[in-house]
Amino acid sequence: MTPNTVVHGTFVIERTYGAPPARVFAAFADPAIKRRWFAEGKGSELLEFTMDFRVGGRELGRFRFQGRMEMRNDTVYQDIVADWRIVFAYTMSVEDKRISASLATIELAPTAGGTRLAFTEQSAFFEGADGPKIREEGWRTLLQRLEDDLRSGK
Amino acid sequence: MTPNTVVHGTFVIERTYGAPPARVFAAFADPAIKRRWFAEGKGSELLEFTMDFRVGGRELGRFRFQGRMEMRNDTVYQDIVADWRIVFAYTMSVEDKRISASLATIELAPTAGGTRLAFTEQSAFFEGADGPKIREEGWRTLLQRLEDDLRSGK
Repeated sequence: MTPNTVVHGTFVIERTYGAPPARVFAAFADPAIKRRWFAEGKGSELLEFTMDFRVGGRELGRFRFQGRMEMRNDTVYQDIVADWRIVFAYTMSVEDKRISASLATIELAPTAGGTRLAFTEQSAFFEGADGPKIREEGWRTLLQRLEDDLRSGK
Repeated sequence: MTPNTVVHGTFVIERTYGAPPARVFAAFADPAIKRRWFAEGKGSELLEFTMDFRVGGRELGRFRFQGRMEMRNDTVYQDIVADWRIVFAYTMSVEDKRISASLATIELAPTAGGTRLAFTEQSAFFEGADGPKIREEGWRTLLQRLEDDLRSGK
Protein backbone atom coordinates (compact mmCIF):
# COMPACT_ATOMS: atom_id res chain seq x y z
CA MET A 1 0.00 0.00 0.00
CA THR A 2 1.49 3.30 -1.07
CA PRO A 3 0.48 6.76 0.06
CA ASN A 4 -1.63 9.14 -1.98
CA THR A 5 -0.23 12.48 -3.02
CA VAL A 6 -0.19 14.13 0.42
CA VAL A 7 3.25 14.76 1.95
CA HIS A 8 3.23 15.05 5.73
CA GLY A 9 5.99 16.84 7.59
CA THR A 10 6.90 18.32 10.95
CA PHE A 11 9.44 20.96 11.88
CA VAL A 12 10.38 22.83 15.04
CA ILE A 13 11.99 26.26 15.24
CA GLU A 14 13.32 27.59 18.54
CA ARG A 15 14.12 31.25 19.17
CA THR A 16 14.89 33.40 22.16
CA TYR A 17 13.69 36.99 22.32
CA GLY A 18 14.86 39.79 24.63
CA ALA A 19 11.29 40.66 25.63
CA PRO A 20 9.03 39.12 28.28
CA PRO A 21 6.42 36.47 27.33
CA ALA A 22 3.54 38.95 27.65
CA ARG A 23 5.08 41.13 24.95
CA VAL A 24 5.84 38.24 22.61
CA PHE A 25 2.32 36.89 23.16
CA ALA A 26 0.87 40.33 22.32
CA ALA A 27 2.73 40.26 19.00
CA PHE A 28 0.52 37.29 18.05
CA ALA A 29 -2.66 38.39 19.83
CA ASP A 30 -2.90 42.09 18.90
CA PRO A 31 -4.09 42.51 15.29
CA ALA A 32 -2.24 45.83 14.81
CA ILE A 33 1.09 44.34 15.92
CA LYS A 34 0.67 41.03 14.09
CA ARG A 35 -0.31 42.83 10.91
CA ARG A 36 2.96 44.80 11.07
CA TRP A 37 5.47 41.94 11.30
CA PHE A 38 3.44 39.03 9.90
CA ALA A 39 1.30 40.43 7.10
CA GLU A 40 3.04 43.54 5.75
CA GLY A 41 6.06 41.78 4.28
CA LYS A 42 8.56 43.09 1.81
CA GLY A 43 7.95 41.99 -1.76
CA SER A 44 4.26 41.33 -1.27
CA GLU A 45 1.18 43.49 -1.43
CA LEU A 46 -1.28 42.98 1.41
CA LEU A 47 -4.80 42.71 -0.05
CA GLU A 48 -6.70 41.81 3.13
CA PHE A 49 -5.94 41.01 6.76
CA THR A 50 -8.54 40.29 9.43
CA MET A 51 -8.18 38.37 12.66
CA ASP A 52 -10.43 37.31 15.52
CA PHE A 53 -8.06 36.10 18.22
CA ARG A 54 -10.10 33.67 20.31
CA VAL A 55 -10.57 29.92 20.28
CA GLY A 56 -12.71 29.13 17.24
CA GLY A 57 -11.99 32.58 15.77
CA ARG A 58 -10.66 32.94 12.26
CA GLU A 59 -7.90 34.91 10.60
CA LEU A 60 -7.60 35.67 6.90
CA GLY A 61 -4.63 37.07 5.01
CA ARG A 62 -4.54 37.67 1.26
CA PHE A 63 -1.29 38.68 -0.43
CA ARG A 64 -0.05 39.31 -3.94
CA PHE A 65 3.57 38.42 -4.61
CA GLN A 66 5.56 40.43 -7.14
CA GLY A 67 2.38 41.63 -8.79
CA ARG A 68 1.44 38.11 -9.84
CA MET A 69 0.14 35.21 -7.76
CA GLU A 70 -2.45 35.76 -5.07
CA MET A 71 -1.78 33.77 -1.93
CA ARG A 72 -4.30 33.22 0.81
CA ASN A 73 -3.89 32.12 4.42
CA ASP A 74 -6.98 30.89 6.34
CA THR A 75 -6.50 30.31 10.07
CA VAL A 76 -8.72 28.96 12.85
CA TYR A 77 -7.48 29.32 16.44
CA GLN A 78 -7.61 25.98 18.27
CA ASP A 79 -6.18 26.73 21.72
CA ILE A 80 -5.00 29.88 23.49
CA VAL A 81 -3.37 30.16 26.94
CA ALA A 82 -2.28 33.74 27.60
CA ASP A 83 1.50 34.31 27.57
CA TRP A 84 2.05 30.57 27.24
CA ARG A 85 0.54 28.82 24.20
CA ILE A 86 -1.22 29.48 20.89
CA VAL A 87 -2.35 26.62 18.64
CA PHE A 88 -3.89 27.27 15.24
CA ALA A 89 -4.84 25.36 12.12
CA TYR A 90 -4.23 27.07 8.80
CA THR A 91 -4.43 26.42 5.11
CA MET A 92 -2.44 28.09 2.34
CA SER A 93 -3.93 28.64 -1.10
CA VAL A 94 -2.39 29.90 -4.33
CA GLU A 95 -4.92 31.44 -6.71
CA ASP A 96 -7.78 29.72 -4.82
CA LYS A 97 -6.11 26.30 -4.98
CA ARG A 98 -5.45 24.95 -1.48
CA ILE A 99 -1.87 23.66 -1.29
CA SER A 100 -1.55 22.74 2.39
CA ALA A 101 -3.18 22.38 5.78
CA SER A 102 -1.13 22.75 8.96
CA LEU A 103 -1.36 22.65 12.72
CA ALA A 104 0.98 25.17 14.36
CA THR A 105 1.87 25.28 18.06
CA ILE A 106 3.59 28.29 19.57
CA GLU A 107 4.94 27.75 23.08
CA LEU A 108 6.39 30.56 25.16
CA ALA A 109 8.44 30.26 28.36
CA PRO A 110 10.20 32.94 30.39
CA THR A 111 14.00 32.93 30.46
CA ALA A 112 16.45 35.06 32.47
CA GLY A 113 16.64 37.62 29.68
CA GLY A 114 13.28 37.32 27.98
CA THR A 115 11.36 34.56 26.25
CA ARG A 116 12.04 31.23 24.65
CA LEU A 117 9.66 30.53 21.75
CA ALA A 118 9.18 27.07 20.27
CA PHE A 119 7.27 26.92 17.00
CA THR A 120 6.12 23.46 15.90
CA GLU A 121 4.38 22.96 12.59
CA GLN A 122 2.75 19.68 11.57
CA SER A 123 1.67 19.92 7.95
CA ALA A 124 -0.03 18.12 5.10
CA PHE A 125 1.15 19.33 1.68
CA PHE A 126 -1.08 18.77 -1.34
CA GLU A 127 -0.43 18.74 -5.09
CA GLY A 128 1.76 21.66 -6.16
CA ALA A 129 2.72 22.69 -2.64
CA ASP A 130 5.95 24.25 -1.39
CA GLY A 131 6.80 21.39 1.00
CA PRO A 132 8.30 21.26 4.50
CA LYS A 133 11.70 22.86 3.73
CA ILE A 134 10.41 26.00 2.05
CA ARG A 135 7.66 26.30 4.67
CA GLU A 136 10.24 26.13 7.47
CA GLU A 137 12.33 28.81 5.75
CA GLY A 138 9.23 30.99 5.49
CA TRP A 139 8.56 30.72 9.22
CA ARG A 140 12.23 31.37 10.06
CA THR A 141 11.96 34.60 8.08
CA LEU A 142 8.74 35.55 9.89
CA LEU A 143 10.20 34.81 13.33
CA GLN A 144 13.20 37.00 12.43
CA ARG A 145 10.79 39.75 11.42
CA LEU A 146 9.15 39.36 14.84
CA GLU A 147 12.62 39.79 16.40
CA ASP A 148 13.16 42.99 14.40
CA ASP A 149 9.73 44.29 15.41
CA LEU A 150 10.33 43.59 19.12
CA ARG A 151 13.70 45.36 18.87
CA SER A 152 12.17 48.38 17.15
CA GLY A 153 10.48 49.24 20.45
CA LYS A 154 7.15 50.07 18.77
CA MET B 1 16.15 24.90 25.72
CA THR B 2 13.51 22.40 26.81
CA PRO B 3 9.99 22.07 25.48
CA ASN B 4 6.92 23.31 27.27
CA THR B 5 4.23 20.87 28.28
CA VAL B 6 2.92 20.10 24.78
CA VAL B 7 3.62 16.61 23.43
CA HIS B 8 3.56 16.36 19.64
CA GLY B 9 2.95 13.09 17.87
CA THR B 10 2.09 11.57 14.51
CA PHE B 11 0.57 8.23 13.63
CA VAL B 12 -0.66 6.57 10.45
CA ILE B 13 -3.29 3.84 10.21
CA GLU B 14 -3.90 2.00 6.93
CA ARG B 15 -6.99 -0.07 6.23
CA THR B 16 -8.57 -1.67 3.21
CA TYR B 17 -12.33 -1.83 2.83
CA GLY B 18 -14.38 -3.97 0.47
CA ALA B 19 -16.39 -1.01 -0.77
CA PRO B 20 -15.61 1.54 -3.47
CA PRO B 21 -14.08 4.95 -2.58
CA ALA B 22 -17.40 6.75 -3.15
CA ARG B 23 -19.08 4.65 -0.47
CA VAL B 24 -16.22 5.06 2.02
CA PHE B 25 -16.17 8.80 1.33
CA ALA B 26 -19.94 8.97 1.95
CA ALA B 27 -19.42 7.39 5.37
CA PHE B 28 -17.47 10.54 6.31
CA ALA B 29 -19.51 13.05 4.31
CA ASP B 30 -23.11 12.03 5.07
CA PRO B 31 -24.13 13.13 8.59
CA ALA B 32 -26.60 10.24 9.04
CA ILE B 33 -23.98 7.60 8.18
CA LYS B 34 -21.15 9.24 10.11
CA ARG B 35 -23.36 9.64 13.17
CA ARG B 36 -24.04 5.89 13.10
CA TRP B 37 -20.46 4.54 13.15
CA PHE B 38 -18.53 7.53 14.53
CA ALA B 39 -20.75 9.15 17.13
CA GLU B 40 -23.13 6.49 18.45
CA GLY B 41 -20.52 4.34 20.18
CA LYS B 42 -21.03 1.62 22.73
CA GLY B 43 -20.46 2.70 26.33
CA SER B 44 -21.05 6.37 25.64
CA GLU B 45 -24.15 8.52 25.54
CA LEU B 46 -24.38 10.89 22.58
CA LEU B 47 -25.44 14.32 23.84
CA GLU B 48 -25.08 16.28 20.59
CA PHE B 49 -23.86 15.72 17.04
CA THR B 50 -23.95 18.30 14.28
CA MET B 51 -21.84 18.51 11.13
CA ASP B 52 -21.48 20.87 8.20
CA PHE B 53 -19.36 18.97 5.69
CA ARG B 54 -17.70 21.65 3.58
CA VAL B 55 -14.35 23.42 3.72
CA GLY B 56 -14.54 25.83 6.68
CA GLY B 57 -17.59 24.02 8.05
CA ARG B 58 -17.66 22.76 11.61
CA GLU B 59 -18.63 19.55 13.35
CA LEU B 60 -19.46 19.16 17.03
CA GLY B 61 -19.81 15.96 19.01
CA ARG B 62 -20.56 15.81 22.74
CA PHE B 63 -20.47 12.47 24.56
CA ARG B 64 -20.82 11.24 28.13
CA PHE B 65 -18.76 8.19 29.06
CA GLN B 66 -20.10 5.72 31.61
CA GLY B 67 -22.42 8.36 33.05
CA ARG B 68 -19.51 10.51 34.15
CA MET B 69 -17.13 12.67 32.12
CA GLU B 70 -18.42 14.78 29.26
CA MET B 71 -16.14 14.73 26.24
CA ARG B 72 -16.35 17.17 23.37
CA ASN B 73 -14.96 17.05 19.86
CA ASP B 74 -14.79 20.28 17.80
CA THR B 75 -13.87 19.89 14.13
CA VAL B 76 -13.23 22.34 11.28
CA TYR B 77 -12.92 20.90 7.76
CA GLN B 78 -9.74 22.12 6.06
CA ASP B 79 -9.75 20.39 2.67
CA ILE B 80 -12.17 18.10 0.86
CA VAL B 81 -11.66 16.35 -2.49
CA ALA B 82 -14.60 14.04 -3.24
CA ASP B 83 -13.81 10.30 -3.02
CA TRP B 84 -10.13 11.12 -2.52
CA ARG B 85 -9.20 13.27 0.53
CA ILE B 86 -10.62 14.82 3.68
CA VAL B 87 -8.48 16.97 5.97
CA PHE B 88 -9.82 18.32 9.25
CA ALA B 89 -8.55 20.00 12.38
CA TYR B 90 -10.13 18.97 15.66
CA THR B 91 -9.80 19.53 19.36
CA MET B 92 -10.81 17.18 22.16
CA SER B 93 -12.05 18.52 25.49
CA VAL B 94 -12.88 16.77 28.75
CA GLU B 95 -15.34 18.66 30.93
CA ASP B 96 -14.63 21.88 28.96
CA LYS B 97 -10.84 21.53 29.34
CA ARG B 98 -9.15 21.25 25.94
CA ILE B 99 -6.68 18.37 26.01
CA SER B 100 -5.51 18.25 22.39
CA ALA B 101 -5.54 19.77 18.91
CA SER B 102 -4.98 17.60 15.85
CA LEU B 103 -4.77 17.69 12.09
CA ALA B 104 -6.20 14.55 10.49
CA THR B 105 -5.77 13.53 6.85
CA ILE B 106 -7.90 10.80 5.31
CA GLU B 107 -6.72 9.58 1.91
CA LEU B 108 -8.71 7.15 -0.20
CA ALA B 109 -7.54 5.21 -3.23
CA PRO B 110 -9.28 2.54 -5.28
CA THR B 111 -7.95 -1.01 -5.13
CA ALA B 112 -8.98 -4.11 -7.08
CA GLY B 113 -11.46 -5.10 -4.38
CA GLY B 114 -12.46 -1.78 -2.87
CA THR B 115 -10.63 1.07 -1.14
CA ARG B 116 -7.39 1.67 0.64
CA LEU B 117 -7.74 4.25 3.41
CA ALA B 118 -4.76 5.98 5.00
CA PHE B 119 -5.49 7.95 8.16
CA THR B 120 -2.70 10.29 9.31
CA GLU B 121 -3.04 12.23 12.54
CA GLN B 122 -0.61 14.95 13.59
CA SER B 123 -1.42 16.02 17.13
CA ALA B 124 -0.49 18.35 19.95
CA PHE B 125 -1.40 16.97 23.38
CA PHE B 126 -1.83 19.36 26.30
CA GLU B 127 -1.79 18.91 30.07
CA GLY B 128 -3.83 15.87 31.16
CA ALA B 129 -4.26 14.48 27.64
CA ASP B 130 -4.47 10.87 26.55
CA GLY B 131 -1.39 10.99 24.31
CA PRO B 132 -0.55 9.49 20.91
CA LYS B 133 -0.88 5.78 21.81
CA ILE B 134 -4.37 5.93 23.29
CA ARG B 135 -5.46 8.29 20.50
CA GLU B 136 -4.24 5.84 17.87
CA GLU B 137 -6.10 2.99 19.60
CA GLY B 138 -9.24 5.13 19.60
CA TRP B 139 -9.01 5.70 15.86
CA ARG B 140 -8.28 2.02 15.18
CA THR B 141 -11.51 1.20 17.02
CA LEU B 142 -13.42 3.80 14.99
CA LEU B 143 -12.02 2.57 11.67
CA GLN B 144 -13.06 -0.98 12.64
CA ARG B 145 -16.55 0.35 13.43
CA LEU B 146 -16.56 1.88 9.93
CA GLU B 147 -15.67 -1.57 8.54
CA ASP B 148 -18.57 -3.13 10.45
CA ASP B 149 -20.92 -0.42 9.19
CA LEU B 150 -19.85 -0.88 5.56
CA ARG B 151 -20.35 -4.66 5.91
CA SER B 152 -23.79 -4.21 7.43
CA GLY B 153 -24.99 -3.04 4.02
CA LYS B 154 -27.02 -0.16 5.47
